[in-house]
Amino acid sequence: MSKNKQPLIFITNDDGIHAKGVNELIEGVRSLGEIVAIAPDIPRSGMSGAISALNPIRLNLVKKEKELTIYSCTGTPVDCVKLGVNEILDRKPDLIISGINHGSNSAICVIYSGTIGAALEGCVLGIPSIGVSLTDHSPSADFAQAVKYGKSVAEKVLKDGLPKGICLNLNVPNIPDVRGLKICSQTPGHWTKEFQTAKDPAGHTVYWLSGEFLNEDPDNEQNDEWALSHGYAALVPLQLDMTAYRFFKTMSFE
Amino acid sequence: MSKNKQPLIFITNDDGIHAKGVNELIEGVRSLGEIVAIAPDIPRSGMSGAISALNPIRLNLVKKEKELTIYSCTGTPVDCVKLGVNEILDRKPDLIISGINHGSNSAICVIYSGTIGAALEGCVLGIPSIGVSLTDHSPSADFAQAVKYGKSVAEKVLKDGLPKGICLNLNVPNIPDVRGLKICSQTPGHWTKEFQTAKDPAGHTVYWLSGEFLNEDPDNEQNDEWALSHGYAALVPLQLDMTAYRFFKTMSFE
Repeated sequence: MSKNKQPLIFITNDDGIHAKGVNELIEGVRSLGEIVAIAPDIPRSGMSGAISALNPIRLNLVKKEKELTIYSCTGTPVDCVKLGVNEILDRKPDLIISGINHGSNSAICVIYSGTIGAALEGCVLGIPSIGVSLTDHSPSADFAQAVKYGKSVAEKVLKDGLPKGICLNLNVPNIPDVRGLKICSQTPGHWTKEFQTAKDPAGHTVYWLSGEFLNEDPDNEQNDEWALSHGYAALVPLQLDMTAYRFFKTMSFE
Repeated sequence: MSKNKQPLIFITNDDGIHAKGVNELIEGVRSLGEIVAIAPDIPRSGMSGAISALNPIRLNLVKKEKELTIYSCTGTPVDCVKLGVNEILDRKPDLIISGINHGSNSAICVIYSGTIGAALEGCVLGIPSIGVSLTDHSPSADFAQAVKYGKSVAEKVLKDGLPKGICLNLNVPNIPDVRGLKICSQTPGHWTKEFQTAKDPAGHTVYWLSGEFLNEDPDNEQNDEWALSHGYAALVPLQLDMTAYRFFKTMSFE
């Protein structure tokens, strides 16, 4: 960053600009630099890395004060990052933080999460990026520990940067005294009982997504689910390159 | 699979059930087994791994004939896979094919693509899964080569399966004589000039996502972009585990 300027921190989320989590994050990291936030105007959970491929998006200024500017956007979390970096910011941000999400984004959730979609997009654009989530879906959840750990990781990343092609997925357990931070791997698993069927008022069947996560490797102490269930904040480094290099050695399509 | 039954092949896409690509795929692989297709009712490109977290989804029967059943769904590509496997199919499919997409899903596109989101979801559910895309966005594109290579890979996967946690991303170039199939790695890169700004009829600014892909490693012959630009079909094995294990050795958060 320029010697004459303090760090520029870009913030987004997927619960929308009115969620408690993103506003607590903004207050929690204001002391670290200038903040620009662009977040969805309404909740867009489960949007993964979705982009608005077919429709235009809009931006609205919500607040502008000294070293804090907040916009809402009609697009997805990834749209918010692309729009911010390409069109709104006058310099490349030093850090992107996505969150704090209301609800866990641990394990295989990374492929569904809008919070993580935004962090991966920051990574695509070459900006050190962190997704932060609290294991509590409640709109009024207590974000004190998540802000504390999120700020700590943000300070570290502002100081040291991140390797190219890697972003961070931080999940913080919803307990008053988190035991510390563990660097973890992504827990393998899948959901069971994924739908609840119901009838709409006209008598037609509708399907509500639901389900229970099944941890396929519950005893592995390196996994993020293990850390969270044992009181630790779990930090998983995620890489953009999804190539399964081990496959090259095991299969042939000759 | 049961000895008494032929393979069950589940098909979806992100361009919607009326797209040419998915219908050509269905016809192309009908000889391989029983087909059940559930695809979005309208185009849902760029939906990545998005799920319908906030609203219920609906299913409508489009066609039912001997060993071919087609539904449309109001959800995302991932919703289609979850709904099919959990609620509609009477046995676990032997193979999931997502596509054939109108347009490339090579390189870093994997994180935005609904086609690939659906293939990754099949992988989460423990089913051998393939995403197939043609490097031509035209609604009337010629899918002959993409069907040929897609069917060939499908036959191989039906025979040998895939390692746990790995699915396949097949991109086929839009040329009459594809030179063969190459197993490739995911090309690193990002988009530039990502937005076109315009005014709506009321004079308000809107942003249309656009842009040009910048290949960050253009001379690497192992990358899928290299293969496609040299006339090969590119097969990238993708893994669900996004953990950047190399990070464990390079950074510490003590």
